[in-house]
Amino acid sequence: MDHRGAEFRAVVRSVLHDLPALFGASSPVAVFPSSGTGGWEAALVNLLAAGDRVLAYDNGFFAAKWAGLARRLGLDVSVIAGEWGLPADPSEVEAVLRADAHHEIRALLLVHNETSTGVVSDIMRIREVMDSLQHEALLIVDAVSSVGAMPVHHDAWRADVTITGSQKGLMLPPGLSLLAVSENARRAKGSRNLGVGYWDWDPVLEAAESGEFPFTPASNMFVGLRAALDLILAEGHKAVHARHRRLANAVRQAVLAWGLSPLCPIESARSDALTTIRVPDELDELVVRSSLLDRFQLTIGGGLGRLEGMLLRLGHLGDIDELMVISMLAAIEMDVPRHWPLMNSGGVDAAMASLVDASD
Amino acid sequence: MDHRGAEFRAVVRSVLHDLPALFGASSPVAVFPSSGTGGWEAALVNLLAAGDRVLAYDNGFFAAKWAGLARRLGLDVSVIAGEWGLPADPSEVEAVLRADAHHEIRALLLVHNETSTGVVSDIMRIREVMDSLQHEALLIVDAVSSVGAMPVHHDAWRADVTITGSQKGLMLPPGLSLLAVSENARRAKGSRNLGVGYWDWDPVLEAAESGEFPFTPASNMFVGLRAALDLILAEGHKAVHARHRRLANAVRQAVLAWGLSPLCPIESARSDALTTIRVPDELDELVVRSSLLDRFQLTIGGGLGRLEGMLLRLGHLGDIDELMVISMLAAIEMDVPRHWPLMNSGGVDAAMASLVDASD
Amino acid sequence: MDHRGAEFRAVVRSVLHDLPALFGASSPVAVFPSSGTGGWEAALVNLLAAGDRVLAYDNGFFAAKWAGLARRLGLDVSVIAGEWGLPADPSEVEAVLRADAHHEIRALLLVHNETSTGVVSDIMRIREVMDSLQHEALLIVDAVSSVGAMPVHHDAWRADVTITGSQKGLMLPPGLSLLAVSENARRAKGSRNLGVGYWDWDPVLEAAESGEFPFTPASNMFVGLRAALDLILAEGHKAVHARHRRLANAVRQAVLAWGLSPLCPIESARSDALTTIRVPDELDELVVRSSLLDRFQLTIGGGLGRLEGMLLRLGHLGDIDELMVISMLAAIEMDVPRHWPLMNSGGVDAAMASLVDASD
Amino acid sequence: MDHRGAEFRAVVRSVLHDLPALFGASSPVAVFPSSGTGGWEAALVNLLAAGDRVLAYDNGFFAAKWAGLARRLGLDVSVIAGEWGLPADPSEVEAVLRADAHHEIRALLLVHNETSTGVVSDIMRIREVMDSLQHEALLIVDAVSSVGAMPVHHDAWRADVTITGSQKGLMLPPGLSLLAVSENARRAKGSRNLGVGYWDWDPVLEAAESGEFPFTPASNMFVGLRAALDLILAEGHKAVHARHRRLANAVRQAVLAWGLSPLCPIESARSDALTTIRVPDELDELVVRSSLLDRFQLTIGGGLGRLEGMLLRLGHLGDIDELMVISMLAAIEMDVPRHWPLMNSGGVDAAMASLVDASD
Repeated sequence: MDHRGAEFRAVVRSVLHDLPALFGASSPVAVFPSSGTGGWEAALVNLLAAGDRVLAYDNGFFAAKWAGLARRLGLDVSVIAGEWGLPADPSEVEAVLRADAHHEIRALLLVHNETSTGVVSDIMRIREVMDSLQHEALLIVDAVSSVGAMPVHHDAWRADVTITGSQKGLMLPPGLSLLAVSENARRAKGSRNLGVGYWDWDPVLEAAESGEFPFTPASNMFVGLRAALDLILAEGHKAVHARHRRLANAVRQAVLAWGLSPLCPIESARSDALTTIRVPDELDELVVRSSLLDRFQLTIGGGLGRLEGMLLRLGHLGDIDELMVISMLAAIEMDVPRHWPLMNSGGVDAAMASLVDASD
Repeated sequence: MDHRGAEFRAVVRSVLHDLPALFGASSPVAVFPSSGTGGWEAALVNLLAAGDRVLAYDNGFFAAKWAGLARRLGLDVSVIAGEWGLPADPSEVEAVLRADAHHEIRALLLVHNETSTGVVSDIMRIREVMDSLQHEALLIVDAVSSVGAMPVHHDAWRADVTITGSQKGLMLPPGLSLLAVSENARRAKGSRNLGVGYWDWDPVLEAAESGEFPFTPASNMFVGLRAALDLILAEGHKAVHARHRRLANAVRQAVLAWGLSPLCPIESARSDALTTIRVPDELDELVVRSSLLDRFQLTIGGGLGRLEGMLLRLGHLGDIDELMVISMLAAIEMDVPRHWPLMNSGGVDAAMASLVDASD
Repeated sequence: MDHRGAEFRAVVRSVLHDLPALFGASSPVAVFPSSGTGGWEAALVNLLAAGDRVLAYDNGFFAAKWAGLARRLGLDVSVIAGEWGLPADPSEVEAVLRADAHHEIRALLLVHNETSTGVVSDIMRIREVMDSLQHEALLIVDAVSSVGAMPVHHDAWRADVTITGSQKGLMLPPGLSLLAVSENARRAKGSRNLGVGYWDWDPVLEAAESGEFPFTPASNMFVGLRAALDLILAEGHKAVHARHRRLANAVRQAVLAWGLSPLCPIESARSDALTTIRVPDELDELVVRSSLLDRFQLTIGGGLGRLEGMLLRLGHLGDIDELMVISMLAAIEMDVPRHWPLMNSGGVDAAMASLVDASD
Repeated sequence: MDHRGAEFRAVVRSVLHDLPALFGASSPVAVFPSSGTGGWEAALVNLLAAGDRVLAYDNGFFAAKWAGLARRLGLDVSVIAGEWGLPADPSEVEAVLRADAHHEIRALLLVHNETSTGVVSDIMRIREVMDSLQHEALLIVDAVSSVGAMPVHHDAWRADVTITGSQKGLMLPPGLSLLAVSENARRAKGSRNLGVGYWDWDPVLEAAESGEFPFTPASNMFVGLRAALDLILAEGHKAVHARHRRLANAVRQAVLAWGLSPLCPIESARSDALTTIRVPDELDELVVRSSLLDRFQLTIGGGLGRLEGMLLRLGHLGDIDELMVISMLAAIEMDVPRHWPLMNSGGVDAAMASLVDASD
């Protein structure tokens, strides 16, 4: 397909038309060829200038990485050091924003679904905190692993930017970052900002109208996005979210039946996109993961950063169904007891019971 | 690939070199573009002439179809009416052969693994019967669904022809029939036989040497055979058989745990390539099969011929692993109780336990 | 796709609905998993019994092979020894049929487009000869390399069987033979015929109604047939034939410009599906073919049987367009003069001029 | 493939090991998920700070775009306004650098093979100019459409950065920018530079050792790079370049034979990766391009920027062979005269003669 031809322009236009609904957004979505890190940077440099003060909530590996990037970009970053494994605590955010009497904090960086811990933060509650304090900081949300799997409410949150990537709920290889950008955010981009080159979202957002990109677009990725959106639209946004909820519940029941502990103690904050399990002291995370890979060609995530060696992360997002989840659980149930005999059986049974209940 | 070129000839030669081991044969294998029915016909017309007497053992849908074909080809077919769901009974064969004082029976037709019932007959025992009676009937064995999944012993059985197809243990689409042909069988092909045209195996068997087929060969199928043989040789014949045994045992444990009955009462005669279950009276076979197809995109076989409506057939042969078997069982365990509440749970658990035991 | 499921039955039905138009037939088409040789055998054994007299016209390698098969099947075959490189001569047929005062010739075997010589015989003229003599022999036509490339007129010819294969104009791998069978032919199949087993076309023709095959069908091949028919129907039968004519004319102009001789001296009898060229004495056919294969990955056919070493055969049928033909000709024009300096240039030019003329 | 697993790390390492040779570089190559624009930006921000003075040579659409990006990033950009269609003139560069007595110009931006004009600049000559003046400006070279098609001499040029993308000579979809970075350039990256976030090449260059990327890498693209490098290494760098030269010469002969004018009057500066032709006044560029697309599914580039409507650009780089080039030329020779009857025939002939000469 000619990436400057009419056929490709039609694909681009239809993709850009259908993307906002994934973010719960009425505003357009900017697409950059980049890794997810590029999405973080794009949001920061279009809205902020060197020395601007931002508040980041660090409750996981990716949240911490994002704060580090902001600091390297020359921003004055305050960090609320949350616990890795808990959601962002609105009252902590409230305390910091209340103390910011002169509203010097220009932006708040929050991760919706922290991929390293499997924990979902309640962005709406934090928006309410901001509202109650009449704090006008920009709200920038990383929804990399929630868009396409869990409800995302860019408009309702009144988020300024909501960020995702191609490689999670959109079921594509990595290579694109996607940002829903509010009207307010577009106005906030002043001349003094850093986003003047590659990351300048103005020409990219204009592509939503013209279908004519300011640079050679990754045409194969746009064709992939079209296919991913077709899958999601055929199933329906709500049905996609319900499926992820149903599968996640099944996995959580299996974990409890095995006598293992979820990382996050707060049930309502556990992610529907992945499940994280504390690794018992007697068990070596690497042994489990390489054993599952060798024996079943099954890739299970491990702990990242300071959680290294302490976590198993079971992904269940994207184009996944009940039998794929049961397969993953069966592999664990058949293999882990060889390394940790204390594990109970019954996890697969509990998951099947959960799925049966959910389908009645 | 040019089907008259050197590269394709090399593929043909290597395939024909590696095929006999799948049959436990030292003699060459004839390959015909045809369905499995063509394999039956090829064996009959190369060895027999109109009016020749043959003995067929009917213990299933495919055995019966084969006997019918033999009759239509003008052979004088005697049938031992075995029970559909039991293996061929050597003593019945013995009685008929013993009564054939003048050795008028020119050939004995046996199905090794009857795909419609999931029952394996003990070909070796029947060969011993023939030997003890010094009966010189030709022994023609249908091993369509056992080659590539279970041990097949063309040489040890002193079979004259052992027949298979491309679409079972060889993991390809249908389109080829393959016949291991003994030296004795090649000598037995006299001028009076019917196999003079398409099914004439002489030029086809010569292709094993020259790699030059007497007709336009299905070159894509030969490339597929090469890939299938590579998979089987990389795993090892014995390991392939052991895997099928291990997976079949797991399925059988699940069936028992569910409180369902295998069709075949004789444990040692149950197939490692597929498992057949009697459908309880209260359950509609078609409802189960269409429900599994709709909900899980899972295709389960049903009863054929006079067993229609009475059977579920669970296939587990070819390029299949533990998690695929668990998935199939989980689908059944989650779905069938909606139609038949008497079914016990615990089948998946039993299968996992069986697999864990087998891997220790 | 489940080969006994509803989805596959629908594919089979739609394929069987659309196939007859390719043959110019209103009668149904029987499909057999087999090579093209199987198609020849199916036609013979359904219509004839051992000892029946048939007349074959041998004007090429495949025509001769077919006659040989008929003889091996026990038919009493008279052969008109035509010249390899000329079409069947209606007056020769007339002479033989006229001499057959008692109408003992039960069938006439004709090849429409002889793939070994690139010569088309005028079946209609021969039908007229039969009519004028009121000779009631069955008319069996091999249209293996014309169906899907050139107009085929099963009904207008009043052919009894018209045979093709999957691997030529249908653009699939080898593996299926397809036979349009007239009402008259179905009636002619008496109980004494040989077609009682695999080749029995009655149950296969009934599949046109039920979509339920009498044997495991090559489901992937039916899916392929559906795709091939979709391509042909989208372009239109007439447009497909016109394209083959246009491309063939271009190739023929190139051959003349090169100073080479077509095998067939009669212009109107040259095939639109392939072009055959006499190899000059000074040139080694094998050297040309292997040089084109090595240098351009281009496969060119050679002479078969008694024409071995004397012919180049350039195929131009199926999913082929102007630029593919120009590529093939350019390869020849750039390579052959290295082996045969007498060859003129200008062939590609002449072909382009021919294509430009045809598109005006 | 697990993008944090051992297998993927091995692919990354082998790719990063083999990439430098494509650039004629001994120094490592940084790979960024981004469009080619990102490659330009990465080079600039790692080496320069806001307000730094750079000299850009504008002799084409992409050169001009790069200069514009540099300006938007806050650099003080002087532009030598070359002619679009000519190579960079070393004497003009010499004049500007000589006038820069205090060596305030920190970097020189040159495009090796300008994709919009098909013109190659002689980077070595310009390096010699810099040397003769002892000017220490950094030398940054865009080799987006020359790497993988033409000799690139990062080391010999003593370039500081040489930039390419995945979508040209590397034959992949767009999505990666690749930068060979000299030792001198790595030292030049001071703390005051802009390249502190996504574009920071330090962690990316370290990946060449560890195979552990600082961000989620586009794993499918690395697998693609491995395949592309395997193709190039199997053919050999020199043979790849010779092939592009041979094909380009053939295209140039065709253009001359048609009576059309190459854009670039200087023979030695015409690109081996694409050929640009001036569109005659009587001919509409868009009509030609859409006619070729409709009739032959052939995509031909047009003029960009101020050359819009004035140019045809014929690409001939990547995985392309003689017959593909002949096909492209034949399509033009058969189609363009319908729109512009003044065009001579004989182009394909001339191209074939050129290829034949080259292969002798």
